[in-house]
Amino acid sequence: MKVIADDFFFSGLHLMGNTSNPVGSRVTTVFATQLPGLNTLGISMVRIDYAPWGQNPPHIHPRATEILTVLEGSLLVGFVTSNPNNRFITKVLKKGDVFVFPVGLVHFQSNVGNGNAVAIAALSSQNPGAITIANAVFGANPPIPGDILAKAFQVDKSVVDQLQSKF
Amino acid sequence: MKVIADDFFFSGLHLMGNTSNPVGSRVTTVFATQLPGLNTLGISMVRIDYAPWGQNPPHIHPRATEILTVLEGSLLVGFVTSNPNNRFITKVLKKGDVFVFPVGLVHFQSNVGNGNAVAIAALSSQNPGAITIANAVFGANPPIPGDILAKAFQVDKSVVDQLQSKF
Amino acid sequence: MKVIADDFFFSGLHLMGNTSNPVGSRVTTVFATQLPGLNTLGISMVRIDYAPWGQNPPHIHPRATEILTVLEGSLLVGFVTSNPNNRFITKVLKKGDVFVFPVGLVHFQSNVGNGNAVAIAALSSQNPGAITIANAVFGANPPIPGDILAKAFQVDKSVVDQLQSKF
Amino acid sequence: MKVIADDFFFSGLHLMGNTSNPVGSRVTTVFATQLPGLNTLGISMVRIDYAPWGQNPPHIHPRATEILTVLEGSLLVGFVTSNPNNRFITKVLKKGDVFVFPVGLVHFQSNVGNGNAVAIAALSSQNPGAITIANAVFGANPPIPGDILAKAFQVDKSVVDQLQSKF
Amino acid sequence: MKVIADDFFFSGLHLMGNTSNPVGSRVTTVFATQLPGLNTLGISMVRIDYAPWGQNPPHIHPRATEILTVLEGSLLVGFVTSNPNNRFITKVLKKGDVFVFPVGLVHFQSNVGNGNAVAIAALSSQNPGAITIANAVFGANPPIPGDILAKAFQVDKSVVDQLQSKF
Amino acid sequence: MKVIADDFFFSGLHLMGNTSNPVGSRVTTVFATQLPGLNTLGISMVRIDYAPWGQNPPHIHPRATEILTVLEGSLLVGFVTSNPNNRFITKVLKKGDVFVFPVGLVHFQSNVGNGNAVAIAALSSQNPGAITIANAVFGANPPIPGDILAKAFQVDKSVVDQLQSKF
Repeated sequence: MKVIADDFFFSGLHLMGNTSNPVGSRVTTVFATQLPGLNTLGISMVRIDYAPWGQNPPHIHPRATEILTVLEGSLLVGFVTSNPNNRFITKVLKKGDVFVFPVGLVHFQSNVGNGNAVAIAALSSQNPGAITIANAVFGANPPIPGDILAKAFQVDKSVVDQLQSKF
Repeated sequence: MKVIADDFFFSGLHLMGNTSNPVGSRVTTVFATQLPGLNTLGISMVRIDYAPWGQNPPHIHPRATEILTVLEGSLLVGFVTSNPNNRFITKVLKKGDVFVFPVGLVHFQSNVGNGNAVAIAALSSQNPGAITIANAVFGANPPIPGDILAKAFQVDKSVVDQLQSKF
Repeated sequence: MKVIADDFFFSGLHLMGNTSNPVGSRVTTVFATQLPGLNTLGISMVRIDYAPWGQNPPHIHPRATEILTVLEGSLLVGFVTSNPNNRFITKVLKKGDVFVFPVGLVHFQSNVGNGNAVAIAALSSQNPGAITIANAVFGANPPIPGDILAKAFQVDKSVVDQLQSKF
Repeated sequence: MKVIADDFFFSGLHLMGNTSNPVGSRVTTVFATQLPGLNTLGISMVRIDYAPWGQNPPHIHPRATEILTVLEGSLLVGFVTSNPNNRFITKVLKKGDVFVFPVGLVHFQSNVGNGNAVAIAALSSQNPGAITIANAVFGANPPIPGDILAKAFQVDKSVVDQLQSKF
Repeated sequence: MKVIADDFFFSGLHLMGNTSNPVGSRVTTVFATQLPGLNTLGISMVRIDYAPWGQNPPHIHPRATEILTVLEGSLLVGFVTSNPNNRFITKVLKKGDVFVFPVGLVHFQSNVGNGNAVAIAALSSQNPGAITIANAVFGANPPIPGDILAKAFQVDKSVVDQLQSKF
Repeated sequence: MKVIADDFFFSGLHLMGNTSNPVGSRVTTVFATQLPGLNTLGISMVRIDYAPWGQNPPHIHPRATEILTVLEGSLLVGFVTSNPNNRFITKVLKKGDVFVFPVGLVHFQSNVGNGNAVAIAALSSQNPGAITIANAVFGANPPIPGDILAKAFQVDKSVVDQLQSKF
C-alpha cells in the first residue's frame, strides 16, 4: 500500500465552528474518518468552539481519555467519578490551562465568559465515540419507554415527556 | 507469593439482594475487591435482583463490556448507540436468554413481569466501574451547577432543581 | 453497518445440555460464533451441565480466564499452577459460590453430588478456545507418536496405546 | 532509576544443559527473573538441550507464543489445535529450520537423531510460564483425585495410580 | 485514594517557550510527570515554539504516535517510513492544518516563515519519550565509538569527530 | 481456515547471509511475511551475520523489543536512552551472552573480532519494522532538505551533502 502525505493531513482546524444551536457549542473532529492515517494509531484531535455562555454538554467517550487546552476564553470544566462516590471534580480554565477527562467518565465544559471560547483537545483513540447524555437518554431513537426513565430519574412521567420532547 | 484457594473463591451469589430502594434492584458484585484472584485477569461477575417492576437504571461501565443471562423472570433490556444516531437497541429477555452491552454505552434492564427477576452478568474487567446516569448527573457531590444542567437538558432550572433533589 | 438487536442476543441458556457421554457433562457456548455482537469485546459465556458424578475434564483455555458460579448442585473444582510447583488449588463449590480459573492453566470441575449440577461461567475472550488435555494429547489427529508419549508420561507404550484407543 | 548495562545482560546460553533426567532434555531460561531488563517488554529467550532421543515433553506456555530454531541435530516438533479438531501439526526440523508454537497450545520437541540436539527459542512474554502436561495432571501437589483422572482419561484407576507414581 | 482536581490540571501552555538555542525551538511538555492524572491513560500534550527558521529536529517517540496542529506560522513537516523504502512523507502546514507522525518513525518540523511559529501536539502515551537523533547518535554519554559511527555513516572519522563535538 | 504445518515453518536460518556491503552485515528475517503463522502472535526471529569488523548499524525497531544471543564471535553492542540523558548502555558480548534492546531505542552491534560473527535475535512483534538511522535521515527518498539537516546536526551543508551522497 502506497503511503501518501494526504492520508496524514487534515486542513481546517483554524475555522470557527458554527455555534448556533441550543447548547451554543460546536465540535470539529479530526478522527480516522476525516484523517485515514490515524487508523490503528490510538489518537485523534478536536477543536471546540463555545458561544458566550455556551457549553459542550455532559457526555462520555466510551473508548478514550481526553486532554484539553484552552486557546481563548474561560471554561468551567469538570468530570464526575463513578459509583458510589459520584464526586464532581471541577476547575475554571483560562488560556493555556490543561485538563484531563479520564476514559468513560461523564464530563463537560461551559463557557463562563462573555466572549467566545476555543479549546483544542486530543483523545486516546482514532475513533473515540461520543455519547451526549441528554441525547442518549432522552433522545434515543426509538425512545426509551417513558415510565422506565421516570423511575430511573424519580420524577413524574410528565417531566420525562418534557425532556424527551427536546431531543 | 503463595497461591491459596481462598483468593480465587467467593461465596454468596445465591443470595437475593435487597431490592427495597427507589429503583427496585440490587447488584451484588464479585469484583477484584471481593475476589483478589481476579486481579489483572480482566473479568468479573455480578448477580442482579429486580423487584417486580424494578429496574437497573441507565448506567455505563467505563472499562467493560457486559454479557447477561436471565435466571428468572422477564427483562426489557437495551443500550443506546453513540452520536449521532443514538439508536435504542432493545429486547425482552426471558429465562435463558443472553444479551451483550458493549463497553461504555448507556444501558439498562427493567423487570417487566409481576414477579421477581434475577440475572447473572459478567464484565470484561476485574474493576469495571459503574456510572449511574441519574446519580452522576443529578447527584454529583458537590452538585454540577444547575444552570449548566438546565441548558444541557433544555429545561427550566426548576426542573433541574427537582431532579437534583432526588439524588 | 446497521446495528440490530439480534446481533447482541442469544436464546437457549436455560436448556439442559445432553450429558450422555463418557465424561458426563456438556458445555453450551455463547461465543462470537453464536453471538456476533461479541466480536472484539473480549467476553463470552457458557452453561455447563453435569450428570451425577460427571465432570468437565481437565482442560485449558488458551486465550481466557474463566469465572464460574454454581446454579445447582455441588462441584469439586481446581486448577494447577505452572512449573515448577504444580500446586493443585481446589475447592468444593455449592450453589452461589464463585471460582476463578486463571488464563492458560489446567482446570476442571467434577460433580460430587448424586444429582445433576449446573454452572454458568464467563470467559475473558469472545473466542477463548478450549483444549481438553486427554483429547489433545491422546486423541490428536493424526496421533502424536506413541513412543514420544510413552517417554513423556514414563509408561510403557502399551499404556499409551490404551489411552490413545479411547480418544 | 539508574539504567545499568548489567540489567540488560545475561551470560551462559552457550553452555550445554544437563540432560540426565527421564525425558532427556534441559531448558535454560532467560526470563525477567534472570534478566531484569526484560520487565514489561514482552519477550524472553531459552536454550533447549536434547540428549539422543530426548524430548521436551508436551507442555503449554499460558502467556506466550514460541518461535524456535534448531542449532544442532534433528527435531520432530508439533502442536495440537484446540477443540473440536485437535489436529496435530508436525514437522521434522533440521539445523536452521524455524517453527512457531502459538500461545496456549500443547506442543513438544523430540530429538529424532542419534546425537545431541540444541535449539534456541524466544517467547512473547518476559514471564511466559510453562505447564508440563504430565507434571500438572499426574504430578500436581496435592494430587488431583485419582477417580477424577480415571474418568477424564477413561482408564482404570490403577493406570492413573501408575501415572501418578512417576511424577 | 482521594481524587483531587489539581491532579488533572496543568497551567502554562499559553507561555512561549524560550527558543534561544542552536535549533531554535522549545517543547513544553505536559506528560504524567507534570500532570499526574494522566497516569495509565495513554495520552499527553505538548506546545512547541519555533523561532524564525527554527526547527524541532529529527526525532522519534519510542512509545507514541503524535498528532499536531499549527496555531501560528508555517511549518514544513515530515516523517520517513521504515526500511527498505525510507520514503519521506512531507507537507507544508499552515494555521489550522493537522498532521500525524506514526509511532516510532523519524520526524521533524521546521519553521519556514520569517516569524515565530507555534504548534500544539498530542501523543498517544502519558510517557512517550523522545529521542533526538543527533543527540542520541552523536551526543551519547559516554560517546558511541567514533569508528563505529564512521562506518555507519560512511564518512571519515574526522567528520564524526566534528559531529560529536557539537552534542 | 485449514491449519497446515508449512504456515508455521521456515527453512534457512543456518545459511550465512551475504555481508558484502558497506556496513559488512546481513540480517535474515523471519517475520510474518516469511512465516504467515506468526500473524497476530507478537514475535519474530532474525539471524545476523557480521563480516570481520562489520556492524549492524544504529537503528530502531518502532514496534518491538529485541533480545539477542551470540552464536559465534564477539560483538560490541549498545543502546542509547532517550532525552535528556542519552546514556550509552554498552557491553562486549561473547558466545552465549544475551542482551536486550528495549522497544524504540537506537541500538547497534559491531563485530570486534577478526573473524565472522553470528547472532540470533528475537523481536516482540511479527512485523517489527526497522529504521536504519543513516538511511532514514540521509537517504530518505525524496531527500530531507539539506539545510534542515545542517541545522539539526549543526554542521555545514557541505557535510550534509557528503552524508546524503552515501545513502
